[in-house]
This record gives sequence, structure tokens and C-alpha cells, in this order.
Amino acid sequence: MQQTDTEEKAATDGVDAGLDNAPSLIATVRDALAAGDTATAAALVEPMHAADLADLLQDLASDQRCALIHLVATDRRPGVLAELDETVRDELIAELGVDDTAHAVAEMETDDALHVIGALDEEDRQRLLEALPSSDRLLLEEALSYPEYSAGRLMQREVVAVPTFWTVGQTIEFLRRCAERDPDRLPKDFYDIYVVDPAFHPVGSIPLSLLLRSRQTTPVTELMTTSLRMLNTDTDQEEVAFLFRQRDLTSAPVVNADGRLVGVITIDDVVDVIDEEFEDDIMHLGGVSADDLYRHTLTTVRLRFSWLLVNLATAVLASLVIGLFEATIAQVVALAVLMPIVASMGGNAGTQTLTVAVRALAMKELTPANALRVIAKELMVGAINGFLFAVIAGVIAWLWFGSLMIAAVIGLAMIANLIVAGLGGAAIPLLLERLRIDPAVASAVFLTTLTDVVGFFVFLGLAAWLLV
Amino acid sequence: MQQTDTEEKAATDGVDAGLDNAPSLIATVRDALAAGDTATAAALVEPMHAADLADLLQDLASDQRCALIHLVATDRRPGVLAELDETVRDELIAELGVDDTAHAVAEMETDDALHVIGALDEEDRQRLLEALPSSDRLLLEEALSYPEYSAGRLMQREVVAVPTFWTVGQTIEFLRRCAERDPDRLPKDFYDIYVVDPAFHPVGSIPLSLLLRSRQTTPVTELMTTSLRMLNTDTDQEEVAFLFRQRDLTSAPVVNADGRLVGVITIDDVVDVIDEEFEDDIMHLGGVSADDLYRHTLTTVRLRFSWLLVNLATAVLASLVIGLFEATIAQVVALAVLMPIVASMGGNAGTQTLTVAVRALAMKELTPANALRVIAKELMVGAINGFLFAVIAGVIAWLWFGSLMIAAVIGLAMIANLIVAGLGGAAIPLLLERLRIDPAVASAVFLTTLTDVVGFFVFLGLAAWLLV
Repeated sequence: MQQTDTEEKAATDGVDAGLDNAPSLIATVRDALAAGDTATAAALVEPMHAADLADLLQDLASDQRCALIHLVATDRRPGVLAELDETVRDELIAELGVDDTAHAVAEMETDDALHVIGALDEEDRQRLLEALPSSDRLLLEEALSYPEYSAGRLMQREVVAVPTFWTVGQTIEFLRRCAERDPDRLPKDFYDIYVVDPAFHPVGSIPLSLLLRSRQTTPVTELMTTSLRMLNTDTDQEEVAFLFRQRDLTSAPVVNADGRLVGVITIDDVVDVIDEEFEDDIMHLGGVSADDLYRHTLTTVRLRFSWLLVNLATAVLASLVIGLFEATIAQVVALAVLMPIVASMGGNAGTQTLTVAVRALAMKELTPANALRVIAKELMVGAINGFLFAVIAGVIAWLWFGSLMIAAVIGLAMIANLIVAGLGGAAIPLLLERLRIDPAVASAVFLTTLTDVVGFFVFLGLAAWLLV
Repeated sequence: MQQTDTEEKAATDGVDAGLDNAPSLIATVRDALAAGDTATAAALVEPMHAADLADLLQDLASDQRCALIHLVATDRRPGVLAELDETVRDELIAELGVDDTAHAVAEMETDDALHVIGALDEEDRQRLLEALPSSDRLLLEEALSYPEYSAGRLMQREVVAVPTFWTVGQTIEFLRRCAERDPDRLPKDFYDIYVVDPAFHPVGSIPLSLLLRSRQTTPVTELMTTSLRMLNTDTDQEEVAFLFRQRDLTSAPVVNADGRLVGVITIDDVVDVIDEEFEDDIMHLGGVSADDLYRHTLTTVRLRFSWLLVNLATAVLASLVIGLFEATIAQVVALAVLMPIVASMGGNAGTQTLTVAVRALAMKELTPANALRVIAKELMVGAINGFLFAVIAGVIAWLWFGSLMIAAVIGLAMIANLIVAGLGGAAIPLLLERLRIDPAVASAVFLTTLTDVVGFFVFLGLAAWLLV
């Protein structure tokens, strides 16, 4: 690993070490804290990047985290709060108290500050805002006036905008003067210059790399792209992420209801949105309400309980179906042995289809235009795999219990259940999306209920009809 | 939706319409193709963005896609091939033939061309490379010499590098001269300038927004950040994505084994990597080998068959466990009715833990440093929820079958299975990661086997011991 890093010594094990905090460093910090030597611990973490420091805090036990945060969050590393997982952050903000947190927030970049404050509950947020200097407070209150998860929350307010009659030379001169006299007016980092009309409506954008390579005398209107993709302050962040992906954007201007340029969203903010949304999808498909890695045990118990309760209800429903055929099972106990196979295969085949459908809906690849084609295909896939597994399961059942009738029953039930699984796996997410219910959250429970009920009912029903 | 877009008329329904192709446009194109009027269809899609055009092609039936691709891919819209889903792209490349595809590839940006060629099999790739102009071919062959999924494949080769003794003014002057005389030497878009020593080792970087606001006479060494995060050409793309996320990078320099600057990776390429990895994780957890939305029915059948076969094996294993207790079930048929509840609750509780663990491993939040703590917590969560659901399921069983003994058996089995589920859900992914097997792929099958086998065995075993 090549590295010219001379300033951030702690970071030199770099990429090949996956940027993980070396276990030895964590151990040293932990030992220092256990010995009550917080000063040494603080000195050890001093050279770390805020993101790595956040990871280290998350790896520590709760009491050690709390001991360390007082030393790092307020003066030395205000940014670390923004990098923390929400659960750990809430804990550490409670530990710091309002004044120290306000002190840290006042030192942050606007978007980091907003990230921290936006996640607080109403009461804590008010108390924190009141503890801030008034200029910071006004800025944050305005940002908080936009709906949660909207472009208005994501955007940075500082934008570089120039009038239509300027040239490249004037623009660069303006930036230099600004940097000398009023550096806070400029965004810390930006990638595009916006050209605006007298009403501050954006009419075009120029990437910095184009501005830099153009002659001083070139008018900005000659360089600018006029096919601007603009976002409204209330555009949902999912739409924002989709637009950035679809158009490979680096930044996009945000306008208010009057069409005035009020901010800009850059791709690094969008990466966070993509991460969050993906996290939501994967967690919901797994039956977890949110990432609970850092939550307290009892909170985790509570969060998972409700989902398991729903699952218990569906499992009882499946058992009721089995209960209808108690007499049949009492006569042919082999049925009890084989019945989980049919239900399990249906559940798994359905989950395959469901996963593809939920993902395709999230990526806007599954649309009304191709929905019927996808459902038809899944029906077909279910029928073919159903037939193949009917033969395999039939042979197994025949060899095991020596009854061709049982083999026929399991085969027919397999075909029926895999067709239902394919149909349900594609149709349930589409239906939920149409009803404006997040398909990632609710699809799985409907699907497994369907495949369990159909699996047990068809298998045992056929058996009752044909065998007894 | 505010929109000043005057050039891309087809795109004006914009963000609020989710950028989806209007169903009416698809219908019109479809009708034109059905009537054999490919010229009209081509004219209709002419003003579309390449990404939207790719979506439209994917929404069309296979024969209509093939009819349209000849008109759009070669001259008018070479970029559309790079935007397509891999399955559809393979189909359309086969339809276009080597010469037309080579023609389209020659018109693309290097990274798009690499994306298309990299996905071809060895033979097609060679034939395509031979059909390319030699300058394009050499560039692509060099890029293809880096391992798949490495930084060398992701990076763009064109980099702006300046010597340590230059000033801001000299740098800007150089860019302007370059743009006039040899525009191809400059990257189409870039965000940072790299400062290199005489051996072309990067020693610092300057964001363009800083360069633009600095005085002409400032030396570049005064502006540059020296804490550079460098990537090797063979760094895995997952590491690249992790680094970009962790450090909120917009671009990072790539060096070869000698430490020479050979390219730069920008965040828009990283977003594609993040999307791909998410897709892999979510698909694998759902038991699908890859996104098969656009694949032919029979390919999908084949891809899903093998996973279902593995599942059949585990289901049969669970059935063998049930088979051990046939005599017990024959005496107390209620056991057959209740046993799926225990297995299902174990599977679901385990999947919750598994999802959190797999996700945390992928995000490097679950590390050797906190593994034991996470396992201990999951054990605890399993025990507590196990106890709660033991009570609930016990009451249900008691009301249903009026037997306190059956209620006790299901309660004890529930506790045992939920503890095993918590332990397995956390330990299995960790173990697979240690063995360098992708936890997202294999964890679920091991886990459900475990919870099924334990669920049935403990429930029926206790029943055989206590009831019969």
C-alpha cells in the first residue's frame, strides 16, 4: 500500500487493513479507560479521522464510550457526533447534555449539524436549538422547516451563482475576492457554478473543470449546460437518489416553489441516502424494523417482538389448516413427516421471486408497463420448477414410504404450491406498492402465510381425498 | 416541478413523474414497432436520455428490442449499451453482431466501453477488441489487464497532474492551453488536481473549488492536502467503496506497484459499485444468484433450481427428524398440528439476527472487537423473546388442546429454539466470514436447517419423553 500521508499517522495502515481500527488500538484505549486514564485515551484517539473515531466509540462498551465522549466531542472533534450510528449518538448526546452538545453542533458544518438535530425528538431539538448562537439557530430552523427526507433537508444552502452577462474571468475574479473578504459565503467544496437570471432562477450550470479550462473572455452563457435537472425543496430523497443514479449527476440545483435557486445537493449526500434506503430494504425483508446492532438488549427485544408476534399469528393460521386434517394424519402419519417439505419449498421459491420483485420495484425496473409480463414469467417459472420438484419429491416419498399414492399427493401439492409461490411473490409486492404500502416491509409475511396455508391445505386435502 | 430544460423535451415530465418513461410513450413506440415502422419508433426515442432509452428497451418485448437496437445503438446512441441491464445487453449485442457493437463501443467513453467489454465472455471480448481501432484497443486491453472488480478497472486513466513548483496561475494556464491544443489529454470531467513529484508519485491534491478561489501567485504546494488516501490498481472495489463512504471522498488517486499515479476514481463510479454490492447482498439473502428480472424464463428456472434443490435437501433432513418420532405423533396428533409453529418461529427469529449480522459485516460494523458482545446480546434477546413466546404459544396450545403437558412442551421447545436461533443467526455469518465464504450467500440455508432440525427435535423429543 502506497501512502504519502504524513499528517494522519494513525491512518497509515490504510486501505489494505480495510480502514478498520486496529484491534490493538482499541485494546489500548479500552485499557486506558478501564484504568480511569481518560487523558491518555483522548490522546490516543486524537489523530484519528472522525469516521474512524466514531467506529471506535461504537466498538467500546457503553460506560467507556460515555467516559471518552466528554473529551473528544466538544472541542476537539465536534464532527464525530455526525458520524455515529443513531442509537449510539442518542446515548452520547444524553451523556453530554444540552449545552455541550450545542457547543459541538455549533462547530459542525450545516449539513452535519442538521443530520444530528434532525434525528432528535421534538423536545430535545427545541432545547438544543435554544442553546445555539442565533445565526446558527436561524439557519437550522429554516432547514428544519422542510419535510423530513426531502431535498430541502439534504441540500447545502451555500451556492455559487453568477449572472448571465458575466465571463469566465469575472467569475474566477469574483470567487477570489469572495474567498479573501467573505469566505463563509462560499461553500466549503463545490463542483458546479450556476448561472441565474435576475429573478435568481437557474438557467444553466458549468462544471468547474470546464470553467477552468476556458478562456477568460468566454461568456458563461456560452459554456453552460441548459438542460438542468432541477429538484424542488420538497422532492423526496428517494427521487433525488434515483435522479442522481439515472443521470450520473455530481450535483443538482434545488429551487423553491417560486423557482428561485435556494441550494444544491451533491453526490456525497446522495450516497448516504442510498445507504440508508438499502439498509431499510434489507432490514425490512429480514423482519427487522431497523438496524439494532448498537441498541440495548431490551430495546432490541421489543423491536423484534412485534414482528415475531405477527409471525406467530400466521404460524397459528397454518396450524389451524393442519388441524382440519387431524383425522387424516392420525391414519397416515407419513403425511406429518412430509408436509413441512411442501410448505418450505413454497416459502423459498416465493422468497426468490419476492426478492427480485421488491428490488426491481425499488430500482423502478418493475413498472406497470412490464408488470403483467413479469407475473406471467414467474407463473411459468413456478410451474416448471414445480414440475421438476414434484418428480424429485415424489421419488423421495415413494422410496421412503413405498406408496405411489403418497408420491402422487406430494407431487401435485408441490406443483400447486410453487405456482402459487411464483404468482404471490410477484403479485404481492406489486399490489402493496399500488396501495402505497412499502413492499419491503409487508410482502414477506403475506407471502409465507400464503405458501404455508396453500402448501398444507393442498397436500393434506389431496391426501384426505385420495388416501383415506 | 420547475424546469428550464429547453433541449431535452422528452425529459420534461421530470422528477415528479419519477423519470419513468411515460406509459403512453412506450405504447406509441410499441405500436410503431408492431406496425413495422421502425423509423417512427427511432424518431420517437431520439430525444431521450440514454438511461431512459435503456429503460424503455428493457420494457419492450424481446423482438421489439432487437428491431429498435439497430437504429439507435450504432450512430445515434452508442451510450445506451452501457446503461442496459447485463442480460438485455448480451441479447442486444448478439443481435447487433461484432462489427456494429465495435462501432458503438468505439464511440463510447472509456469507462462505459470497459463496462460493456468487461462483461463479455473471453471469446466475444477478443473478437470485439479486434474489430476496434488500434488506439482504442490498446487502451482497453491495458485496462482489462487489471483484475476484475479492482480499482484498476474502475479508474479513469486521464488525470490532471502538475509539478510541485507550479503556481495556481500556471496550473490554470496549462489547463487552458491543453483544452485548446490537445483536449483529449484532459478528462471530460474532474474534481481535483494532483500534485506529483518528478517520479510521478502523488504528493498532494487540490479540489478545483479551492484552486479557483486562490490567487494566481499561490504555489500549489501551499494549497494541497497532503493526507492523500491512495488506492492501488489491485485494491478490491468493495474496499474502494468503503473508503469513499468512510471518508466522504469525491475522488481518489490510483497508483501502480511503483507508486506512480496512473488514474483516478470518482464517486459516480463508486455509486455503481455500491448499487451492485447491495444488489448482490439482497439477492443472496433471498436465495437468488443474481437479478434475473430480464432473463429468459428457462435461464431463471435453471438459476433458481439449484438453490431450491439445496433447500429440498434441508427440508428432507428436517423431515427425517420428524420421522424419528412417527410413533409419538401417531399417539398425539396434536403434535403434528403444533410442530410447524416452533420451527417457523425459530426460522424467523434467526433471520432477524442474521440480517442484522450480515449487514453489519458488510458495513464493517461487526468486527472481531465486538463479535463476542454481539453474540452474547443475541443469546440474551433469544432467551427473553423465547420466554415471552413460550408463554404465548403455551397458552394457545393449552386453550386449543386442553393439555398442560402439551403447553409445557411447546413452551420449552420455543425457548430452546429461539436461543439457538439467536446464537446461530449471529455466529453462522461470523464463522462463514472467517472461512472467507460470503455470509450473504450461505448463511440463510445453514440457519434454517439449524432452526428446523432443533425445533422439530426438541419439540417432538420432549413430547416423546414427557407425554407418551
